[in-house]
Amino acid sequence: MNASAGDPIDGQVSYDAQGLVPCVVQDWRTGEVLTLAYMNAEALRRTRETGEIHFFSRSRQELWHKGATSGNTQAVQAIRYDCDGDALVALVQPAGPA
Amino acid sequence: MNASAGDPIDGQVSYDAQGLVPCVVQDWRTGEVLTLAYMNAEALRRTRETGEIHFFSRSRQELWHKGATSGNTQAVQAIRYDCDGDALVALVQPAGPA
Repeated sequence: MNASAGDPIDGQVSYDAQGLVPCVVQDWRTGEVLTLAYMNAEALRRTRETGEIHFFSRSRQELWHKGATSGNTQAVQAIRYDCDGDALVALVQPAGPA
Repeated sequence: MNASAGDPIDGQVSYDAQGLVPCVVQDWRTGEVLTLAYMNAEALRRTRETGEIHFFSRSRQELWHKGATSGNTQAVQAIRYDCDGDALVALVQPAGPA
């Protein structure tokens, strides 16, 4: 948990035992589900600071700026918390293929 | 893995160490992401046999027919596999609130 004043989403996000929360990335225009990946608190913070999707790679165990190498970044239009599934939903504008 | 002839999706699904795969449930009409929950091979099989969403509840450790008690079942229109995120995406027609 990474609660901070004036930042309602942080207090709501429930991370799992590995400190991760699943994030569904959806094309904000078409509604297409582009990917499902995981964020830790740091990835969520950077996503919100930069406006571009950051994940935590479970296989590489490191922060991962989506599209950093391919150029296919995903600009975040909105991010919301799904209470039912303990998941984040990020609506994005893809710069290229997911 | 639960591969069977003529059933391409089963051979593709990669379950985690607990035998689970995340499934994003999306309203097929509005595109809204309704929930994210987990399926094991049995839940996926029942989902496809009955045409209604079944999950495996990690907290209760049992099969869970979505809406069985509330009546808010979710009729599956399509189910696809997202290679990038090792996740299933189910497009549903909700019978009521998610």
